[in-house]
Amino acid sequence: MTTRIVELRRGILKKNDELAAELRARFAAAGVLVLNLVSSPGTGKTALLERTLKGLKARGARVAALVGDLETDNDARRLASSGVPVRQINTHGECHLEAEEIGRHLDDWKELALDQLDFLFIENVGNLVCPSDYDLGEAIRVVLLSVTEGEDKPLKYPTMFNSADTAVLTKMDLAGPCDFNRELAIKNINEIRPGMRIFETSAKTGAGFDEWLAYLAEEQKSRH
Amino acid sequence: MTTRIVELRRGILKKNDELAAELRARFAAAGVLVLNLVSSPGTGKTALLERTLKGLKARGARVAALVGDLETDNDARRLASSGVPVRQINTHGECHLEAEEIGRHLDDWKELALDQLDFLFIENVGNLVCPSDYDLGEAIRVVLLSVTEGEDKPLKYPTMFNSADTAVLTKMDLAGPCDFNRELAIKNINEIRPGMRIFETSAKTGAGFDEWLAYLAEEQKSRH
Repeated sequence: MTTRIVELRRGILKKNDELAAELRARFAAAGVLVLNLVSSPGTGKTALLERTLKGLKARGARVAALVGDLETDNDARRLASSGVPVRQINTHGECHLEAEEIGRHLDDWKELALDQLDFLFIENVGNLVCPSDYDLGEAIRVVLLSVTEGEDKPLKYPTMFNSADTAVLTKMDLAGPCDFNRELAIKNINEIRPGMRIFETSAKTGAGFDEWLAYLAEEQKSRH
Repeated sequence: MTTRIVELRRGILKKNDELAAELRARFAAAGVLVLNLVSSPGTGKTALLERTLKGLKARGARVAALVGDLETDNDARRLASSGVPVRQINTHGECHLEAEEIGRHLDDWKELALDQLDFLFIENVGNLVCPSDYDLGEAIRVVLLSVTEGEDKPLKYPTMFNSADTAVLTKMDLAGPCDFNRELAIKNINEIRPGMRIFETSAKTGAGFDEWLAYLAEEQKSRH
């Protein structure tokens, strides 16, 4: 039974990888930088995204977002207030997004022209395990870790941290009340993924967003 | 492909349910109350458990714990300081514990006699999706929600909240800095699982632990 499951999973992953590769080629041809945001539930993906969308828009960038959740369209409604195009993907119980869903929702989204975008953000389902195996064709996978979650999370969820390209520490405004050990968190991230770029942010106060937005602009420019 | 996966998953769940039923009978015969703690990564399962184990021990109860993680034995080492028997289960990438693992680890744990225990706590892998489908033979499933995660989590992860018997709000000491809306969180929990018992705790300050420990003692007494 286990062997069959592993084989089937490999088959699905292979299919997902093929679709992700097609998406990646499509994104590159359109000149849009695609980022896949992953984290635990409640780490603050939507809060980071809200401030990021507004910040990039204020700098003249053309942005859009796809947000995944098991249920509800809370996040899409919340992000729509930033005045950029946003679509919700409900996975109805599945713990991750897949490349096929991204492709299908982009095909359905008639008003959205990828080649008129600078950035497309994909907010994954809140989960530190399942999304790690599913390439969505993104250029950059961003793993978020909030100061409230504990500094040991990179060691306990190594696959996710290892699969990411960039890390963002969130809720830095709560570092004091949480007795957050910044050095330990950074050490643990580096232990799993040496040299990973790490940003320290607070979506509440705006701390760290100048560096984060400058990084995104640089990445967009350097790749297209 | 999808149909075959669903069929295989049903097969695994059926097998898991059978094993869980056996475990449940075994726990009942031994007179041990078994609780399965589920939540996001970083909600504070280990911190709640640490204070709970110490508190129950101080009241003369006989307690033990099994703790699940993808990797590391951090939690078991941390909990061992409470002076009660603790064992780590590493799932090596799997996003949930299964009944078979619980049974196997209990069989291997020669020093542990279930009929000499009042409580056995199982700390599940940090994940708000996958553990919901896997019965571990527990008497009570406890879902934790920290005030840092956002009041909407019950609506976004309904299967997990619906599958739980009791909810514990954690990190109440951070309610102020997080602008936590207590009424909204309770309303959302009740929307998914009307009438669910809800405790409001801080493992840091000890707030809410008198009620929580009294509840556990009552449940133990009333069932055996």
